[in-house]
Amino acid sequence: MADPRFFTRAGPFTVAEIAARAGAELPPGADPELVLVDVAPLETAGPGDLSFLDNRKYVDAFAASRAGAAFVRPEHAGRAPSTLVPLLAKDPYKAYALAARAFYPEPAPPATISPTAVIDPTARLGTDVSVGPYAVIGARVEIGDRCRIGSHVVIGDGVIIAEDVRIHPHCTLSHCFVGPRTTIFPGARIGQDGFGFAPDPAGHVRVPQLGRVIIGADVEIGANTTIDRGAGPDTIVGDGAMIDNLVQIGHNVAIGRGCVLVAQVGISGSTKLGDFVMAGGQVGIAGHLTIGTGARLAAKCGVMRDVAAGVTVCGFPAVPIKEFMRQFAAIERLAKKRGK
Amino acid sequence: MADPRFFTRAGPFTVAEIAARAGAELPPGADPELVLVDVAPLETAGPGDLSFLDNRKYVDAFAASRAGAAFVRPEHAGRAPSTLVPLLAKDPYKAYALAARAFYPEPAPPATISPTAVIDPTARLGTDVSVGPYAVIGARVEIGDRCRIGSHVVIGDGVIIAEDVRIHPHCTLSHCFVGPRTTIFPGARIGQDGFGFAPDPAGHVRVPQLGRVIIGADVEIGANTTIDRGAGPDTIVGDGAMIDNLVQIGHNVAIGRGCVLVAQVGISGSTKLGDFVMAGGQVGIAGHLTIGTGARLAAKCGVMRDVAAGVTVCGFPAVPIKEFMRQFAAIERLAKKRGK
Amino acid sequence: MADPRFFTRAGPFTVAEIAARAGAELPPGADPELVLVDVAPLETAGPGDLSFLDNRKYVDAFAASRAGAAFVRPEHAGRAPSTLVPLLAKDPYKAYALAARAFYPEPAPPATISPTAVIDPTARLGTDVSVGPYAVIGARVEIGDRCRIGSHVVIGDGVIIAEDVRIHPHCTLSHCFVGPRTTIFPGARIGQDGFGFAPDPAGHVRVPQLGRVIIGADVEIGANTTIDRGAGPDTIVGDGAMIDNLVQIGHNVAIGRGCVLVAQVGISGSTKLGDFVMAGGQVGIAGHLTIGTGARLAAKCGVMRDVAAGVTVCGFPAVPIKEFMRQFAAIERLAKKRGK
Repeated sequence: MADPRFFTRAGPFTVAEIAARAGAELPPGADPELVLVDVAPLETAGPGDLSFLDNRKYVDAFAASRAGAAFVRPEHAGRAPSTLVPLLAKDPYKAYALAARAFYPEPAPPATISPTAVIDPTARLGTDVSVGPYAVIGARVEIGDRCRIGSHVVIGDGVIIAEDVRIHPHCTLSHCFVGPRTTIFPGARIGQDGFGFAPDPAGHVRVPQLGRVIIGADVEIGANTTIDRGAGPDTIVGDGAMIDNLVQIGHNVAIGRGCVLVAQVGISGSTKLGDFVMAGGQVGIAGHLTIGTGARLAAKCGVMRDVAAGVTVCGFPAVPIKEFMRQFAAIERLAKKRGK
Repeated sequence: MADPRFFTRAGPFTVAEIAARAGAELPPGADPELVLVDVAPLETAGPGDLSFLDNRKYVDAFAASRAGAAFVRPEHAGRAPSTLVPLLAKDPYKAYALAARAFYPEPAPPATISPTAVIDPTARLGTDVSVGPYAVIGARVEIGDRCRIGSHVVIGDGVIIAEDVRIHPHCTLSHCFVGPRTTIFPGARIGQDGFGFAPDPAGHVRVPQLGRVIIGADVEIGANTTIDRGAGPDTIVGDGAMIDNLVQIGHNVAIGRGCVLVAQVGISGSTKLGDFVMAGGQVGIAGHLTIGTGARLAAKCGVMRDVAAGVTVCGFPAVPIKEFMRQFAAIERLAKKRGK
Repeated sequence: MADPRFFTRAGPFTVAEIAARAGAELPPGADPELVLVDVAPLETAGPGDLSFLDNRKYVDAFAASRAGAAFVRPEHAGRAPSTLVPLLAKDPYKAYALAARAFYPEPAPPATISPTAVIDPTARLGTDVSVGPYAVIGARVEIGDRCRIGSHVVIGDGVIIAEDVRIHPHCTLSHCFVGPRTTIFPGARIGQDGFGFAPDPAGHVRVPQLGRVIIGADVEIGANTTIDRGAGPDTIVGDGAMIDNLVQIGHNVAIGRGCVLVAQVGISGSTKLGDFVMAGGQVGIAGHLTIGTGARLAAKCGVMRDVAAGVTVCGFPAVPIKEFMRQFAAIERLAKKRGK
């Protein structure tokens, strides 16, 4: 179980309650009143624990598990030991995620405004907002209901934040709008000037950055990630985008719905990503490109040209993955031939 | 126009005033009293707007623009529509930058010292300095006239900051000198210990880092960028260097005048960059190297050897770009041959 | 000498005291009472200065040095000028590190608790702890003797910190334990949620992150580095690990004793590093891998498979370094052949 120093468990729940919350099905004959007290991996789960089988690699662990219940795809349910209630789910990992959120809901701090927070008198805060110590909230800022603003967060003049947003400590936000239910992790920097200047040997001349950052609903932005505001157009992050730590998003970039950007990705100015683009860790994307919906950019690749929808690219300069594999195999053969 | 929630426009200006500020020339017969109220892209500009044509790709947009005036190179001025005053400039983007700064000057906050700032009694602040809430300024710190120190900025003992420096919220500075008119964006970390230790299986032994960070005039340092102080020699950033977000600069590194380091660049200890070196995003440079003046390091390359002045390198390990192109073409051919 | 604005020198010391502290040997006939006042490089050292010769490249500088004493391996001691006392050491750089720490001990601030720190009444602080302005310390936090908590540090509920830990300004810590004598540099983010969700076109579903971060003794964690807490298992950093700036460590990662991670390294979830693994700058390691004890990952490489103990890998995808060299040579030859 999770360390009670840090986590507070809810429940217990009956297996029927859990199945309902997770959109899973109880098999015929299962006892709907079976009580579950916690979540655990297949290997360590006991009779009161809920687990899941997502990857067929672990079918044997499933067959040997002492868990009281587990989410599983119908085709593997037959392997369940007699002591385990198989909860049938199309996507057992998603079902587990929903169930784990029932056992470990995010703690809601009391909706208190720290007396040390500096809040401009023209700022408007919704109901049940919490603001941590030493937060600084600028003029004309609007913060929606139930938002949680961490300690030391600095929110610049005019920023608008929708409801149920959580901003962890030490973030800075300026020149931006943030959609509902978005979470921003510690140290993220949002809305500062983009990297724009006219190069000149006599001294580069900075170009005023006159756009904003528009962040959608249900977005996550990782720790110490940086998102610059637009130069004139806006920088845009679509609904449901998941952005990991230490990611750089340049000015005028537009990121579609549900995109996933793993840690240390960098996206240069004015590049557009369609919906559900996946970029692995340390991917770099040059400026002014278009990456099609559903494209996959393998970890560490360097994208120098547009990528069509649905295509997977790899390497530097990034090429479609089959081509990359052929290239790599060709190099290996060549190196071996000469090695002899 | 820029969102008035976040930006305050100055002006209007006559076209003659704008031409004078931007170092551009009014063509014969143009009305010097034409009034301009804002800046805008060629496509969306109206009769009161100022625009620019820098990239010949947009000549058609220029020819069709409804802008009142636009900076343009003399050779394209003939394509101006009759309603548009072409302002002749050698470098239209630089002229635009200067004009945009006239319309959107950086807002100067009132020179107030927040009552919550903790300022050591031995620190000396110049005239018209502003210090934000919760800033912490150490012993013997000196801060020049008109500096703007953001909220939560922490400045360690002895640091000296010249005039007109702007430090955005949440930066930490120690063991450093900062030149005039330099801007440091949120979350930058300057002057902490370099990564220096004597490796030892019984426990690595840290080597005291006894140098400083010397930052020149008119420098920009991006959000969450880290610049370690020297180990004995200093870490140096030359005048006019432009450093983007999430860049790492190791101890004893020296960066010349006007260098441009795009986001997520990493420079290992004791490497020296000449003047006007350009490093693309995610470039890595090994330690103890010399990169000549005007060298260009293509995005994502890994530099393992010295680079001569003026040379462009690419790839890993980085080689001159022509060689990289030949290598890449050779691999592609080889892979295709085998693919058949 | 180090700039007295920023550094306070201790001493002087006799050469015998220094030899004893550094584990070095005085040669027969040397005057043990010779007084040393500072450390300096071989080239600039004077008669009162202590230096060292570690790299044979600098034997000539050693032979010409005016230093009063220098650490040197026995085989080079014969090259010492007559005015220089050669202090015999197996590892002269380590000996220098220890001596430099004698001359420049880390300043110990007075053990004061800033009146502006917000400390939960249930937190327990050891003796001689210092807490900087605007630090925020949560419920049930435990902080060991002689810890130094910088200004604006935020420590979440339940965190336990052992003795003699130094946390620089602006760090955030949650869901973690920190071992004795560990140093955390400014802006590091430790213990926030890992990047875990069930992908779903209808909206990715976040998976609660129920683990912790366990940091060992004598660890260093660089500026703006991010270490996510585990998803269920813990994220672990072994004793004596040295982690540079802007490093990303994903959930469930385990890092062995004495590992060295240079700046901008990224390690994906659930990967395990043995002891004394060295990863160069900008290395990326995929998830769920095992990297053996003593493996070396060359700068900028992308590790996609397990690496056996003691092996050095390079490139993308990373291969053993000899293979990489062969591949690179083969590509160069091929490109040249076609270039003709």
